[in-house]
Amino acid sequence: MPTLEQARQFYQAADPVHDFDHIQRVLRLAERIGPAEGADMEVLRAAVLLHDAAGAAGGGSGRATHQAASAEVARAALAAEGWPADRIEAVLHCIRAHRFRGSEAPASLEAKILFDCDKLDVLGAIGVARAVAYAALAGQPLTGAPSEKFKATGEKEPGEPHTPYHEFLFKLSRIKDRLHTASARALAAERHRYLADYFERLARESAGEL
Amino acid sequence: MPTLEQARQFYQAADPVHDFDHIQRVLRLAERIGPAEGADMEVLRAAVLLHDAAGAAGGGSGRATHQAASAEVARAALAAEGWPADRIEAVLHCIRAHRFRGSEAPASLEAKILFDCDKLDVLGAIGVARAVAYAALAGQPLTGAPSEKFKATGEKEPGEPHTPYHEFLFKLSRIKDRLHTASARALAAERHRYLADYFERLARESAGEL
Repeated sequence: MPTLEQARQFYQAADPVHDFDHIQRVLRLAERIGPAEGADMEVLRAAVLLHDAAGAAGGGSGRATHQAASAEVARAALAAEGWPADRIEAVLHCIRAHRFRGSEAPASLEAKILFDCDKLDVLGAIGVARAVAYAALAGQPLTGAPSEKFKATGEKEPGEPHTPYHEFLFKLSRIKDRLHTASARALAAERHRYLADYFERLARESAGEL
Repeated sequence: MPTLEQARQFYQAADPVHDFDHIQRVLRLAERIGPAEGADMEVLRAAVLLHDAAGAAGGGSGRATHQAASAEVARAALAAEGWPADRIEAVLHCIRAHRFRGSEAPASLEAKILFDCDKLDVLGAIGVARAVAYAALAGQPLTGAPSEKFKATGEKEPGEPHTPYHEFLFKLSRIKDRLHTASARALAAERHRYLADYFERLARESAGEL
């Protein structure tokens, strides 16, 4: 299995939303949830360390297909270490299946845990930081509340900008219901509540109420 | 006094941390705190609308001296509206004295209120968003806790990166004790607590504890 320092090299050029700190946070969650769920920890750790290896390092594939590109990076890295083909495939399945809207759904326990840990890292106080950082890098406003129309339908008013609060309502608020393992769902409940409360407070502060 | 739409033109090129949304949030606070403290609202509103007019619009002076450059923008804008010289000077004093480390301290009630409202906008949930956005734009890591050495002395370990949590300990945590008006201190107490709790939670989530 790649060491932490070996894995770090894949993330040197990463943006701050998918950097090696993200990998290390996901690893700490996997090392907590994996044993509780009875996972093969060698497969799970390798999958965590390499799951964003290509898209994050600007491998040319872009975010949309980074799971496939990262799987190929992992295939080469693990073959070079002499892993047997079936265990390489087990890692590659985890990596290919870790996206929220990916075409391959997590089938193995280890794939489900990687998916869950990766998603936990967009909730809670970390989720606040990542949503805000993404908006700042994209030139979006940081504050400002979604319109009543957006809240009811997911459709914006003319000229309504996208903000982190929109991202929460559109995507992040649904994640807790998409997780596979009981261990992750338990952590997600509290992280979801924190994230929801944050955006409600942000809107009230922006209105000068608090 | 400039209208909101007239003031907005000064902030077209602003970064997301000092954009027109910031101006509007400060204005909402000033319209709450100003009457409670008995301020001259015409002077206060003009000062709020123009306080970041130059540095934010990339006027060439940089952030370090944007208060002086913004005061000169305000002088021209208010003279063009036919304001009397003494009331222009009252606005300019507010603008020159609004920086945390500026050389001119707030002497008038209106200057103290602008200072306080500007500082309230770096605390609370908004403070979280601004600190994170600043870090993302500067290429700093979003998470990661300060070392024990930094917590005790404000000095970093060799290679220790600056993060939003460092910025909180180094600067943001002290702001509540620097405010001038009772109205602002009352709002700051809760916003400070929220910001402090955020960074504590962020560190615990990053460690995989929550």
